[in-house]
Amino acid sequence: MDDIALAEVTRGGRIESLHLGRIAVMDDSGRVVQAHGAIDKAVFPRSTVKALLALPLVETGAADRLGLSDAELALACASHGGEPRHAETAAAMLAKAGKTLTCLECGAHWPTYDKAAHALAASGAAPTALHNNCSGKHAGLICLAIDQSLDPAGYIDPGHEAQRQVTDALVMATSVPHNEANRGLDGCSMPTYAIPLSALATGFARFGTGRNFSSGHASAAARLRSAVASEPFMVAGSGRFDTTLMAHFGNRIFCKMGAEGVMVASLPELGLGIAIKTDDGANRAAEVALASLLLGFDEAGWSDSDRAVLTGLSHQVMKNWNGREVGTLRAAGKG
Amino acid sequence: MDDIALAEVTRGGRIESLHLGRIAVMDDSGRVVQAHGAIDKAVFPRSTVKALLALPLVETGAADRLGLSDAELALACASHGGEPRHAETAAAMLAKAGKTLTCLECGAHWPTYDKAAHALAASGAAPTALHNNCSGKHAGLICLAIDQSLDPAGYIDPGHEAQRQVTDALVMATSVPHNEANRGLDGCSMPTYAIPLSALATGFARFGTGRNFSSGHASAAARLRSAVASEPFMVAGSGRFDTTLMAHFGNRIFCKMGAEGVMVASLPELGLGIAIKTDDGANRAAEVALASLLLGFDEAGWSDSDRAVLTGLSHQVMKNWNGREVGTLRAAGKG
Repeated sequence: MDDIALAEVTRGGRIESLHLGRIAVMDDSGRVVQAHGAIDKAVFPRSTVKALLALPLVETGAADRLGLSDAELALACASHGGEPRHAETAAAMLAKAGKTLTCLECGAHWPTYDKAAHALAASGAAPTALHNNCSGKHAGLICLAIDQSLDPAGYIDPGHEAQRQVTDALVMATSVPHNEANRGLDGCSMPTYAIPLSALATGFARFGTGRNFSSGHASAAARLRSAVASEPFMVAGSGRFDTTLMAHFGNRIFCKMGAEGVMVASLPELGLGIAIKTDDGANRAAEVALASLLLGFDEAGWSDSDRAVLTGLSHQVMKNWNGREVGTLRAAGKG
Repeated sequence: MDDIALAEVTRGGRIESLHLGRIAVMDDSGRVVQAHGAIDKAVFPRSTVKALLALPLVETGAADRLGLSDAELALACASHGGEPRHAETAAAMLAKAGKTLTCLECGAHWPTYDKAAHALAASGAAPTALHNNCSGKHAGLICLAIDQSLDPAGYIDPGHEAQRQVTDALVMATSVPHNEANRGLDGCSMPTYAIPLSALATGFARFGTGRNFSSGHASAAARLRSAVASEPFMVAGSGRFDTTLMAHFGNRIFCKMGAEGVMVASLPELGLGIAIKTDDGANRAAEVALASLLLGFDEAGWSDSDRAVLTGLSHQVMKNWNGREVGTLRAAGKG
């Protein structure tokens, strides 16, 4: 099936750029609810599955034994901007495991949120692995390992017991194999496994409803969704799509971006999971496509303020350095 | 004509993302030499035409009267990274016109080159309009206005005499109208005019050969190409594609990127101009597509070192924060 136009960038009343992609909307039994484009084609989920990777941390009881807070659980599901609260929260998670940032194997990079990067530079400090957008996920794996008295060293490698447990959670949620045949290496040095877009959407339908999960995984999913809904800043950060969407919708919508234009969402009340991949890898297009898709769910009974938030996210005015309007980033064909 | 696959991103041995686009290769008479995709469709050239906009600065004699150096002329053609030498050179251009950065109407933004942004923040300073990637172009227009005893205020507006002169240069080079019907607003608040990709390529064939230019414009083009070839750092900056390519090829290849995935090049010895637009606006794809296209010009008689540079730019290994190889960014179908 041909992929569809997801989003367009306009300037001077013309379409300047156009993003193609595919969208799968599935229920928790694996039934196709909406299919746009090649939804059976495999994609690397990248950071979209961080909340699934966090399931063992909660399900095993490690999170409770270590006393992890909502903010810390939300950070375990995050691709954060490296803002001070993000880095501090990652450090706090490690401290609860009796560890420090030297255990992190994600590598260091400057905060992706520019203001945080400039403030860090102005303070005379250099970025650490705590500022890596994946530091919460990595701290979560270290917590999982420590709780089981495992040596966390090498937790990023497929053969490590903690990594094996989080990979099992992916298999359970998506019902597709994760092994060396579909393995790629992610930016933070953890594996990422190529799976059909439809399977990714099914996994997030289940993450929303808990059905077709074990009871332990179902309650862990509910706990993680609740944590993320109460601490949406932790999942992304200032000005970011995921944070903006979940700050408004709370536990009605879970969403998560991933590098190279992947986006997932759970709609627990409707029992649906969504997965989007832009063909070209542009995240800006996946964001407006999700907002536009959500706007179309009449059965969700959106309020006027819900619609206002979704409309704002699916039709964004672009301004230049002088604050003058130059065009729009919007869902395709909705101009 | 359908657009073609220009570039692909791979991970774990799979294609993760794919960029479509179109390529026009034209000669200076406007003859089509290669057409891939919809080359007659209009695109906003964005920053690709900065060298054409600089023609009046040289052709009127303003550059000589003000004593502009090669580095300063190259900066007039630049989308620079805001590195210290870039900002200093923009300030020097303004000083030669008896002006300061308060005349710049491009707006301020942090250097796009991260290391320069972090160093600026660490110094306790804030970015100014000198760090705007377009500050050289703007300083050039101010120099042009001052040399003609014009008040530079409002030089960014279509009705300003200096702006009218640079727009005339675009019309002359591309042989297509530039007026309110095809006008958009660029990031730096100057107009950008949508023109066929083929016309953009023709303009850069002429920029390379000087044929079908007035004699004044032809010598101005030669002067600008020479300036850029001798100061390629000024056109972009550290680690940037344009700088890397021209630092190796000197005056054999002129190239210039523009926002939203536009790329142009001149091959003076072959009498050819090239224009590329990625459908989705990704600059990474336009870069590898140009390098791959150039590699295919057997008539250019590339040396082994020429081929090594082009191969490196058209097939780039991507590494993660730990320096581990995760995939490639490469010309499509060349894997």
